[in-house]
Amino acid sequence: MPIVTIELIEGRSVDQKRDMAKKITETITEITKIPQDAVEIIFHDMKKENYSKGGLFAIDM
Amino acid sequence: MPIVTIELIEGRSVDQKRDMAKKITETITEITKIPQDAVEIIFHDMKKENYSKGGLFAIDM
Amino acid sequence: MPIVTIELIEGRSVDQKRDMAKKITETITEITKIPQDAVEIIFHDMKKENYSKGGLFAIDM
Amino acid sequence: MPIVTIELIEGRSVDQKRDMAKKITETITEITKIPQDAVEIIFHDMKKENYSKGGLFAIDM
Amino acid sequence: MPIVTIELIEGRSVDQKRDMAKKITETITEITKIPQDAVEIIFHDMKKENYSKGGLFAIDM
Amino acid sequence: MPIVTIELIEGRSVDQKRDMAKKITETITEITKIPQDAVEIIFHDMKKENYSKGGLFAIDM
Repeated sequence: MPIVTIELIEGRSVDQKRDMAKKITETITEITKIPQDAVEIIFHDMKKENYSKGGLFAIDM
Repeated sequence: MPIVTIELIEGRSVDQKRDMAKKITETITEITKIPQDAVEIIFHDMKKENYSKGGLFAIDM
Repeated sequence: MPIVTIELIEGRSVDQKRDMAKKITETITEITKIPQDAVEIIFHDMKKENYSKGGLFAIDM
Repeated sequence: MPIVTIELIEGRSVDQKRDMAKKITETITEITKIPQDAVEIIFHDMKKENYSKGGLFAIDM
Repeated sequence: MPIVTIELIEGRSVDQKRDMAKKITETITEITKIPQDAVEIIFHDMKKENYSKGGLFAIDM
Repeated sequence: MPIVTIELIEGRSVDQKRDMAKKITETITEITKIPQDAVEIIFHDMKKENYSKGGLFAIDM
């Protein structure tokens, strides 16, 4: 705790995720003073056929 | 926002999801007056071995 | 199952939620042929100070 | 309802999940007196490259 | 990790939640051999006006 | 999209949340090149009686 869940369209590299996880963890630690080790981050990769905005699927945009 | 997440056993076609996304977006827009473009829908496909009801897995029913 | 979660800024009436729940359930039943009784919908009311878009809080927009 | 979601690093067997689902369902039924059939459990398998703790990915630990 | 989220209609006592948390943690530890301290459980209390099954709200059943 | 959900023990100030939302949005925008306006962040405030780690509730630690 805190537990951060990030829903993202698939296609980000492991390096991009690693970089986001590192910086978001630092931000939360710096602002809340919660120990860094307690910050957990989960990425959910969404397929383009599983995300709709305004009634349109990402595969149809 | 609003953000709608739908947990479904895998096996629905893209057309079925597209149809659900379109109609659910229209329903929310009509009732809340929130602009259609702000409505996001995420489908999570569950494997049958990842869903249990009453202590029984979908693969065992 | 299916399980639908809807994150909404607080302030919708019970009647609006009831109406959304009814119509979304009908849509899912009609398209997937899953029995109506199996469709569950959960609303999460978000405070305006708990939702940010583009780095701005709803209370600051 | 209740709806239980379990985020787990991938690699557990179907038997382990079945066993967890059975026992967790029994625990909830016993304590809340909610009928067993109403307890639903969803497992989300996380890839090691999708989980970070303390800013470090599971694949880097 | 694992991270367990439990959506429940409001009204369970702290003692019931404490008892569920303790037993579910033990079950997961016993089956997966993950250290007990790594198991986190989050309860989400749902108001009756925020949960619908089969298109009917809990407050209307 | 991306949609970021942050589960936090209650008690953070609006200023702390605003600061986290701003910096996390900047981080995601910088790394993924997704337009800033598409990044949404939702905070879920957990009561101490709703969070357990290692089978112990935050109110009992």
